[in-house]
Amino acid sequence: MGCGVINAGKSQHNEDQACCEVVFVERRPSPRGRLMSREGCGELDGGRKGFYFHYWALFDGHAGSGAAVMASEKLHVHICEQLRDLVDILQDPSPPPICLPHGPGDPTRVSVAEDDGEVPNDAVPRFHLEKAVSHESLVIGAIENAFKHMDDQIERERGAQHLAGGCCALAAIYLMGKFYVANAGDSRAIIIRNGEIIPMSREFTPETERQRLQFLALLRPELLGKEFTHLEFPRRIQPKELGKKMLYRDQNMNGWAYKKIEEDDLKFPLIYGEGKKARMMATIGVTRGLGDHDLKVFSSNIHIKPFLSCFPEVRVYDLTQYEHCPDDVLVLGTDGLWDVTNDKEVAGVVMEVLTSYEPNDPCRYTMVAQELVVRSRGVLKERGWRLANDKLGSGDDISVFVIPLGGPGNYT
Amino acid sequence: MGCGVINAGKSQHNEDQACCEVVFVERRPSPRGRLMSREGCGELDGGRKGFYFHYWALFDGHAGSGAAVMASEKLHVHICEQLRDLVDILQDPSPPPICLPHGPGDPTRVSVAEDDGEVPNDAVPRFHLEKAVSHESLVIGAIENAFKHMDDQIERERGAQHLAGGCCALAAIYLMGKFYVANAGDSRAIIIRNGEIIPMSREFTPETERQRLQFLALLRPELLGKEFTHLEFPRRIQPKELGKKMLYRDQNMNGWAYKKIEEDDLKFPLIYGEGKKARMMATIGVTRGLGDHDLKVFSSNIHIKPFLSCFPEVRVYDLTQYEHCPDDVLVLGTDGLWDVTNDKEVAGVVMEVLTSYEPNDPCRYTMVAQELVVRSRGVLKERGWRLANDKLGSGDDISVFVIPLGGPGNYT
Repeated sequence: MGCGVINAGKSQHNEDQACCEVVFVERRPSPRGRLMSREGCGELDGGRKGFYFHYWALFDGHAGSGAAVMASEKLHVHICEQLRDLVDILQDPSPPPICLPHGPGDPTRVSVAEDDGEVPNDAVPRFHLEKAVSHESLVIGAIENAFKHMDDQIERERGAQHLAGGCCALAAIYLMGKFYVANAGDSRAIIIRNGEIIPMSREFTPETERQRLQFLALLRPELLGKEFTHLEFPRRIQPKELGKKMLYRDQNMNGWAYKKIEEDDLKFPLIYGEGKKARMMATIGVTRGLGDHDLKVFSSNIHIKPFLSCFPEVRVYDLTQYEHCPDDVLVLGTDGLWDVTNDKEVAGVVMEVLTSYEPNDPCRYTMVAQELVVRSRGVLKERGWRLANDKLGSGDDISVFVIPLGGPGNYT
Repeated sequence: MGCGVINAGKSQHNEDQACCEVVFVERRPSPRGRLMSREGCGELDGGRKGFYFHYWALFDGHAGSGAAVMASEKLHVHICEQLRDLVDILQDPSPPPICLPHGPGDPTRVSVAEDDGEVPNDAVPRFHLEKAVSHESLVIGAIENAFKHMDDQIERERGAQHLAGGCCALAAIYLMGKFYVANAGDSRAIIIRNGEIIPMSREFTPETERQRLQFLALLRPELLGKEFTHLEFPRRIQPKELGKKMLYRDQNMNGWAYKKIEEDDLKFPLIYGEGKKARMMATIGVTRGLGDHDLKVFSSNIHIKPFLSCFPEVRVYDLTQYEHCPDDVLVLGTDGLWDVTNDKEVAGVVMEVLTSYEPNDPCRYTMVAQELVVRSRGVLKERGWRLANDKLGSGDDISVFVIPLGGPGNYT
């Protein structure tokens, strides 16, 4: 595995944070009544019962590094906590139970669920309609809820710990033969397999999440504080344009249409700008992530957080479905990387660097990551950081993980 | 172009409706002041100014055919109305104006916009931030708003005209070199090009729109009328299961997790069931379409309409980007077709039938459409309608359009 991180000057300190861990998920001790009978089993089993997961994550902080630092220290702990209740279920090849006789790891309930003479859950005749739920979707649910718990922890502890700002979070979890890539923000993950590019995330920005944000603003107009309109316009409207017709789109539209400009349309649009300059409420350029609980619109009392989501989109890649060679990798990068390069160029660098090292050289993935960040920062010239094509570098922090998918001895 | 329609017995009458038209979009007469000066131009131009579009649409009715019949008679008229304001703009290769000096076709305003000495709009210095809007996105916006106007008309006239029920709507519009495929419901469109399948729509059902519906229910709980919970569970919960842990997912989740069952979870889930049996509020299996203004949950006063959307998703296919042969087609089908067959099988039938006719035989597309509906209905045996593989046919109405993309003299 290779990692590269660079601060390219936009902020004084690097607001990107990274974390890479192997985490043991130990089955939660059963409630008191069950604990006694199981402890013996534990010893017969030869010790702790559980499994490992591999974990890599990038946190791109904004308005301070506090949230990013805490998330880098704790997100994997929350994922582990969520998975602890699932240790037995994930290791059992039969479909997960829809209903558990009593809460796993719930210390308020002892093992009396079957005491009233009910037949155990799995002997009950199947319900007429019952949705099948896969093991995979339990892991996805665990990761989703771990992000929520992480965000809650930042909210609780931000006062005492001076946790400023917020962060985008991109995490890759390798568990039981599958990669789970969870993204909340504008970082990006791709798999490069035999030269082919497989996107493993999408970006969450005011532009990509426009309809969700407009829908919320329409249903909860008080969140806009009389300063904003939920409609989008291609540019600011001037008061003297009242009564003219201007292009707009609302929460239902992907296309544009003309509407007659009314008084309310003179408010600032909820979503405004394009590409890297797109902002929600003229304040923030990403719409998912952790933290930002105190973020407000400049010189106002309007909170941003209700519009942000801390939930990631989780994509799954099954490593067992394909035979991977040592040149197949998963690349995670913060937006500092993707602002100045694209999937294809990254794949080119990956292949160029990997082929210049021996396949069993342990340094080759690190060299790829280093090369990616160095090329994306560029070279400091009189006119600022310049890329190879003399374009201006992004100036943003750049963090990259390069994770091999194949080769000898991986994840076993 | 070929068309096939069959009633396979689920309802007494065929609730599917179809429409195929070539529509002339005439520029709306200018307001009084401009009309006089332009009329001379009109004559010099040789008559009416405007353009044609080709139009095919399928309407799959439910709970009566009234909405489907009206939509089949009027949707293209609404699309035409929306496009009338855009005649000059779409024919002008320069980017559409962001702001119009005064409303096009707005009879309440005469041409006095420039009378106050302002410089004309396009001579004003460009704004610092101005989003580029394409001609294509104006057509998309026009189609989106036409669906909305169609739905409004059904609502207004449903009392007088006894328009029962609602309908899914799938429309294909060919305009200035591009196909616009607009879908609201569970019909489906695919392009078959040189044997390759290009999806041109996606289905809108309680399952695919779960998160939108749950989000709305969370923000507007009064719409659930104390009967439903916005959470999804894999099966009904029994009162005696209170306090146990059950799998659930909410508006933020794609995965599943366990939660302790509380009193509120005993309500019926907003989204329930799987595949063709998935229902919203135990009532309806599609979540977009026209009509349904009076639809309520059985023996309750809970309205379904607030959860339904009449807005289509519009996908665009640029016919000029590829040289098409006479075997390349766009297939539109109601769910009666897709319930018993899939994209690949449809492509197989298309190629099999087309190659059995001469390329310039005008009947060949009709024969494909007929073959698709006949095979999907199956053959009536003692045990009901049976398909070639002896599986039960869907029994639903089946309607299909097969529209050639290439060949001599198309759309010129």
